[in-house]
Amino acid sequence: MAESISTLRVNSDRMLDMFNKLALIGATGDGGVSRVTFSGAHLAARKWFREQIERSGLDFSMDGAGNYSATLTCDCSNAQTLLLGSHLDSVPNGGRFDGALGVIAALEVLRTVKENGIMLKVNLEAIDFTDEEGTLVGLLGSAALAGHLHLDGLKNPRGGRENLEAGMARAGLTDESMLAAARPKGSLAGYLELHIEQGNRLERNGINVGVVSAIVGIRSYRLSFIGRADHAGSTLMTDRADASLGASAFTLAAREIVMKDFPNCVVNVGKMEFTPGAFNIVPALVNVALEFRAPSDEEFDQVGSALLVCAEMEAQRFGLALKKEFLGSHSPSLASEKIKTAFVDACNGLGLTHIPLISGAGHDGQSLVDMCPIGMIFVPSVDGASHAPREFTKWEDCVNGANVLLQAVIKLGTE
Amino acid sequence: MAESISTLRVNSDRMLDMFNKLALIGATGDGGVSRVTFSGAHLAARKWFREQIERSGLDFSMDGAGNYSATLTCDCSNAQTLLLGSHLDSVPNGGRFDGALGVIAALEVLRTVKENGIMLKVNLEAIDFTDEEGTLVGLLGSAALAGHLHLDGLKNPRGGRENLEAGMARAGLTDESMLAAARPKGSLAGYLELHIEQGNRLERNGINVGVVSAIVGIRSYRLSFIGRADHAGSTLMTDRADASLGASAFTLAAREIVMKDFPNCVVNVGKMEFTPGAFNIVPALVNVALEFRAPSDEEFDQVGSALLVCAEMEAQRFGLALKKEFLGSHSPSLASEKIKTAFVDACNGLGLTHIPLISGAGHDGQSLVDMCPIGMIFVPSVDGASHAPREFTKWEDCVNGANVLLQAVIKLGTE
Repeated sequence: MAESISTLRVNSDRMLDMFNKLALIGATGDGGVSRVTFSGAHLAARKWFREQIERSGLDFSMDGAGNYSATLTCDCSNAQTLLLGSHLDSVPNGGRFDGALGVIAALEVLRTVKENGIMLKVNLEAIDFTDEEGTLVGLLGSAALAGHLHLDGLKNPRGGRENLEAGMARAGLTDESMLAAARPKGSLAGYLELHIEQGNRLERNGINVGVVSAIVGIRSYRLSFIGRADHAGSTLMTDRADASLGASAFTLAAREIVMKDFPNCVVNVGKMEFTPGAFNIVPALVNVALEFRAPSDEEFDQVGSALLVCAEMEAQRFGLALKKEFLGSHSPSLASEKIKTAFVDACNGLGLTHIPLISGAGHDGQSLVDMCPIGMIFVPSVDGASHAPREFTKWEDCVNGANVLLQAVIKLGTE
Repeated sequence: MAESISTLRVNSDRMLDMFNKLALIGATGDGGVSRVTFSGAHLAARKWFREQIERSGLDFSMDGAGNYSATLTCDCSNAQTLLLGSHLDSVPNGGRFDGALGVIAALEVLRTVKENGIMLKVNLEAIDFTDEEGTLVGLLGSAALAGHLHLDGLKNPRGGRENLEAGMARAGLTDESMLAAARPKGSLAGYLELHIEQGNRLERNGINVGVVSAIVGIRSYRLSFIGRADHAGSTLMTDRADASLGASAFTLAAREIVMKDFPNCVVNVGKMEFTPGAFNIVPALVNVALEFRAPSDEEFDQVGSALLVCAEMEAQRFGLALKKEFLGSHSPSLASEKIKTAFVDACNGLGLTHIPLISGAGHDGQSLVDMCPIGMIFVPSVDGASHAPREFTKWEDCVNGANVLLQAVIKLGTE
């Protein structure tokens, strides 16, 4: 039995057929998909997912956060659940691999375990989490499941309350159902996710699998550099309090600081908004959208202080005031040693090369890290493309990832 | 008669009464007015202006560009017209002096000349030009009068074609009427304007009157720094083509260049627009709204080249492409020696101190400089405020300006 289990593989053709059918739902015609949370295409993908679950003889369920699940119950009483999954929503005009691959692979693992009659000590659940990408809230389904959701967050979502309300109505959900989706603390044995790498470290180094050691923490601020609106023709250059200067100097300095002192961290100024924003008026106010990421709590605090001190200094240098508005934070999340070991053993058993990787992107595992052990694996993404129609992973790599997931699940589920 | 003319003064109380009544139309309650072109408040101000003209026994006329005029015709046959004026439109939430003072003073000069029976060799016309501030097109009425307007400009106005069409409809104007408003070349003897200074050089130096020597040239570009959108978490800092870096470095360098090498010029980056503009995506494109001003053709070309070369260099430094879109230009406009002399003589006759000034702001005189001699005077603005509700000029200074205008008109009109 041990021998036959270690040679067990997912059904590559069946999985490819599922993957291709899913990629048609919300297809944008350029290889990508657009399935933003609770859009018609997103709900159609979920309907299709439910049909696949039911046809496979697995149990379907939907919770109050709209998470769709396939469950394969074990015979043990009071068994914990080993959760596998990802998400079927996409960014607008995104790719067909991000999220979708993880959901399809999770379902394929359950089908393979079921049809081979593998007896595990845990229930298996393949989950499609709601709104991982954050069109509405971000990591919404996993936060709800973990009990991290609060009414405040639902009332002021980043995608706008009106959009969230309309979306929830289309999906048959409410604030109340969302808040009621929290599961009991000890119910999960772990959370495992397969995802494409959003970067090119695996491809560049010719490695099959990345075993995620941590998901970076993400913190965001709105920095407001505040000067004075003046006539851009008649005000002497030396008499201006030009908000664009503080914002520009900060943008350049932030990059220098991170590259020089924080090699594991990244920083992004994704947007500036100018007020009043006219050709002929000196900018009175520039709002800067700042986001930075770090893999450990220590680096997170250090890089955060360094950036905010820098913003103060640049504001002062140009005679500006500075307002710092904290917008939100996810702490860095460490992967469980046990799950990492299971992934590494699976790679070795399958003859696949692997390296540890830090995930620079956020994932649903972050929501669950306080609730159960988490772990993720990445497979190579061509050119490191992600969140774009050109996103592509060779099918062989997708199948490798699914087999690593399968073997890790069997190991963790039989211990 | 020469003696009595040199002691002639405008009626300060009557002029103040007109000024205060006008300031109520579109008043914003904080000392300012909002009378954007063809808004209800703007059209109400024009209706009130027409009533003042007709009550004063002057001839009212409106041309195809919506310019409102009071005319005092002289007895000479084939006389040219000496044009005095400014504008009744304001920027959104602007001040009550910018433009309005010049129109009221022009009308008061005509009333004073008429009631004192001064015989001139020119017709006098007090004009309220349409859309000086450029909510729709900018210097629209004066460009139309000078024959500089083209259908292209009306089809793609900076304020949007829809707004222009709706505004023209409210004012009873059409593209055709606009283009037909051009006056014959030799019809004007000159154009004179009284305006508040948009800066604090007069106030700072305790000077009564600024005699404008030139109106700066203004040129504007949209500079597009073009990089690549990437995931702001998973893309290494060194792998990014971040458009914000080129835009920021250019903004800082442009200021340095102008302050160091072009002391008579100014530059403004009034706006940046980020695409896609998300916290978690590296900016692929930043559009920079660039405007610069110079008092002479030579400096205009030199500062322009220096800034565009700088943009190229900063784009290159950060691995970005650069697109330069020329949006428009007004050449520097020199004031006529004859009109400047008339203003200086008038100041001396009135015992007012005066200095030459360059106008850093654009004015309708620019449109007319190819058509007739032009000249402007400025009176002190408290704190140099302009285009803001706190804009303020002491009434005594307003009256000084109107008397300089009156005396210069009499001198130029009797030569």
